Amino acid sequence: MKSEIIAVGSEMLTPFRQDTNSLYITEKLNSIGVAVSFKTIVGDRRKNIVNAVRTALSRVDILILMGGLGPTEDDLTREAVAEALSLTLRRDAPQVAALHTRAAMWRITMPQNNLKQADVLEGATLLPNVNGSAPGQWLDTTFSGYRKLIALLPGPPHECRPLFDAECLPRLSEAVPPRVIAVRTLKAAMIPESQADKLLAPIYTPFTDVETTLLAHTGDLQVTLICSKPDANAARQRVDELAGRMEETLEDWLYSSQGDTLEQIVLYYLELRQATLAVAESCTGGLVSERITSVPGASRTFLGGAVVYSDELKTSMAGVPADLIKQYGAVSAEVAKALAQGIRARTGATLGVGVTGIAGPAGATESKPVGLVHIALCDAQGCDALERTFRGDRQRIREWAAQQALDLIRRRLM
Amino acid sequence: MKSEIIAVGSEMLTPFRQDTNSLYITEKLNSIGVAVSFKTIVGDRRKNIVNAVRTALSRVDILILMGGLGPTEDDLTREAVAEALSLTLRRDAPQVAALHTRAAMWRITMPQNNLKQADVLEGATLLPNVNGSAPGQWLDTTFSGYRKLIALLPGPPHECRPLFDAECLPRLSEAVPPRVIAVRTLKAAMIPESQADKLLAPIYTPFTDVETTLLAHTGDLQVTLICSKPDANAARQRVDELAGRMEETLEDWLYSSQGDTLEQIVLYYLELRQATLAVAESCTGGLVSERITSVPGASRTFLGGAVVYSDELKTSMAGVPADLIKQYGAVSAEVAKALAQGIRARTGATLGVGVTGIAGPAGATESKPVGLVHIALCDAQGCDALERTFRGDRQRIREWAAQQALDLIRRRLM
Repeated sequence: MKSEIIAVGSEMLTPFRQDTNSLYITEKLNSIGVAVSFKTIVGDRRKNIVNAVRTALSRVDILILMGGLGPTEDDLTREAVAEALSLTLRRDAPQVAALHTRAAMWRITMPQNNLKQADVLEGATLLPNVNGSAPGQWLDTTFSGYRKLIALLPGPPHECRPLFDAECLPRLSEAVPPRVIAVRTLKAAMIPESQADKLLAPIYTPFTDVETTLLAHTGDLQVTLICSKPDANAARQRVDELAGRMEETLEDWLYSSQGDTLEQIVLYYLELRQATLAVAESCTGGLVSERITSVPGASRTFLGGAVVYSDELKTSMAGVPADLIKQYGAVSAEVAKALAQGIRARTGATLGVGVTGIAGPAGATESKPVGLVHIALCDAQGCDALERTFRGDRQRIREWAAQQALDLIRRRLM
Repeated sequence: MKSEIIAVGSEMLTPFRQDTNSLYITEKLNSIGVAVSFKTIVGDRRKNIVNAVRTALSRVDILILMGGLGPTEDDLTREAVAEALSLTLRRDAPQVAALHTRAAMWRITMPQNNLKQADVLEGATLLPNVNGSAPGQWLDTTFSGYRKLIALLPGPPHECRPLFDAECLPRLSEAVPPRVIAVRTLKAAMIPESQADKLLAPIYTPFTDVETTLLAHTGDLQVTLICSKPDANAARQRVDELAGRMEETLEDWLYSSQGDTLEQIVLYYLELRQATLAVAESCTGGLVSERITSVPGASRTFLGGAVVYSDELKTSMAGVPADLIKQYGAVSAEVAKALAQGIRARTGATLGVGVTGIAGPAGATESKPVGLVHIALCDAQGCDALERTFRGDRQRIREWAAQQALDLIRRRLM
C-alpha cells in the first residue's frame, strides 16, 4: 500500500522552517511495509489544503495529515478534509467537556474558538492526545470507490509522534498485508564518495529485492539496506547476506554494522582498551570534544581537553613550545604533534589528540591554503600524524577535520 | 504569482534525508514577491513525477523542479515533464559535444547513458551548469490555456543554487509584476516562548500587511517581518515601524535587529570593548567554544578554553581547588565561579566563563536533578553566577546551557 504525508502549516513554506515529523513517520510506516510515495507541504489556506487532500486521495491509499488541528482561525485541516470528502463535522460533547476540564485545570478561561477542537469528521474516531488539547482523528472511508485510511494528527512533534505510535500504527498494521521489514545500517568513515559507489554498486545491484541507500556527508558514509518480505527469516537473511559482502568490501573504512555514530564507536573502543582520551583543538574550536561528549557516559573515558585558539594558549594550556610555533607556524605537523603530546602529558590521558588548521575564509598563506589541517594522535608508543587539505566553507572544513580526527582515534584503537 | 517547488529523488522519501534546497529557493522567490504555495517531494518513478508535475501545473503559475537530471536510469525528470506536457525531447548537438569535452577533460570514457543529459524539452532553453554535467532547462509555456514558467534544476545544492540565482531569478523577475519585499529579522535570547507571543501578538496583529513569523528554539527567538508592496519605501516603512515597536517591547531580550546570531553579537561586543574571552566547559563539552569559533574572525577576541569533563581536569586545566569540588560537588555555583576565575587567570582573558551541569541521562542526585546547570562569568570587577534547571534530553540541555552562557556574556558586555 502506498502512502502520502501532508504537512500543513504556512511556517513550513518559509525559508526558516522544515517539516521534520515526516522523517519519523516515514521510518514507522516503512517498518510495517508501507512506502511513502509523496510528501506535500501546504500552507494554512483552506482551498490549498482541500486541493492537497484530493490530490493525495487520488494517488495513494493511506494519507497522514499533520498540523492545522489547533484552536486558531488558521487551523483548517478538519474543515478542509470535510470539504474534500464531502463530509459533515459534528461537535463532540465529551470532547467539549474535556476541553472545559483542561481549561479549568490550567485555570484559564476557554476562548470560544477552542471548541473547534471538538469538531469530528462524520464517521471518524477521535484519537486521544495526552500531550496537547487537540485530539487526532482516524477515518476509514472510501474515495472514488476505493478504500482510504486517513489520519489527522497535531503538528507539534511531541504530540504528533506519540499519537501516531499509539493510535495509528496499530490500526495501519491491521489494515496492511503482513510483511516483515528487515533493516541494517552500515557506517564507514573517510571513504571517498566516488570510490564508495564504485565499490558497492556491483555488490548491491543484483540484490533487487533489497532497497539500498547510500548517504555521504563530510566523510561519513551511511549505507541502509531494507528488505520487505512476507517471511521474517527470508527478509533478514537477504539483508544480512548483502551486509556481509559490503562489510568485506568496505574493509577498515567500516566502523559500524549497526548504525552507531563514529563518536559512539570511539568511546566503545576506549572502554574496551581501558584507555582515556584528551583533545587539544585549534581550528575545530571544540567540535571534536562536543561530538564526543554528546554521547551519554562519555565521562567514563573522555577526560576533556583544551580549545587553543590563540598561539599563547597553545603554549600555556597544551605546553607547545613558543619556539616551535615560531619556527614551523601554528598550522604544522610539528605543532599538531606537540599539541597531542602536550595535552596528553597535562591530563594524564592514554591518548592525546591535536588538531590545527586553517578553517578560513581568512588565514591562508602562500604555502598554506584554506582547508589545510594537521592532526596528530599520541600515546605511550608514539605519534600518528596526518596532513589533509579539505574543501568547502569554514563549517565544512571544521566538520571534515573533526571527522578525520575521530577516525584517526578509531583506527589506532581498532 | 503562486509557485510550487518539487524535489525529485527517492532518497528524500526515506527517514534519512530531507530536501534543503527548497529553503534557499523559497527565500529567493520571496525576495521578488513570489510566494510558495506548495512543496512536493516525489521519488524516482516516472509515473509519480508526471502526476506531481500535472498537479502542480493545475494549481500554480511557476514550477521549480529539482533533481532527476543526472545520467542514470533513475534520472527521469526530463522524460516526466515531457510526458506531463505532451512535449518531445530532442538531443542537443552542442550539449552532446560539451559532454564529450567534459569526459575528455576528466580522462574518462563517457557511458552512453550520459547522453541523456543532452535531451532538451521542445521549446526549452538550456541553462548552463558550471558546477556539474547536467544543464538546467527553462520552459515558458502554456498548460490548459494558462501561461506557466517551469525550471528544471539539478539536485546537488552546489549546482542547484548558483544555477537558480544566475539563470532563473532574472527570468522570473522579468515575468512577475514588480513588487518590492522588505524583510527584517529580529533576534532575542532566553525569553520564555509563551511570554514572547503574549507580548508581541498585540503588536503585530494589527499590521495585517506585514507577514510576521515567530520561531523559537532552545532559548533563541527569531521574529521575521515581511512586507510586499509595489512601492519600496512603503514596504520598508511598514516593516521598520513594526520592528521598532517590537524592539521596544523585547527590551534587553533583543540582541539583534538585523538577523545576526548570538555568537556573532558576543564577538562584536568583545571587539567593541577590546576584551578577550576564554571558556571552561564541563557539561556543554565544547559547545560554547564551537559556536563562537564557527564565526570567521573569532580568533581576534576568543582565546580558547578548556573542556574539563573530569574533576581532575577541572583542577589541572582550570585551577579549581580539589577541596572545593569535594565540598560543594562538581555541579555547584562555587565550582562554576572557580572555573570562570581559573580559566581567566590561566589565559589572561578579560572575561572568563565557567559552565558545569548535569546533561543526563545519568548523574542526577537527590538534590541535583538532570538539567541543573551553573554558569559563571568573571572579569576584573567580579563574577555573575546563574543557576538554571533546563528540561529536555541531553542534547537540548546542552544547547540551552550554551545559549544561556552566551547570553550571559552578551548582557555583561552590553
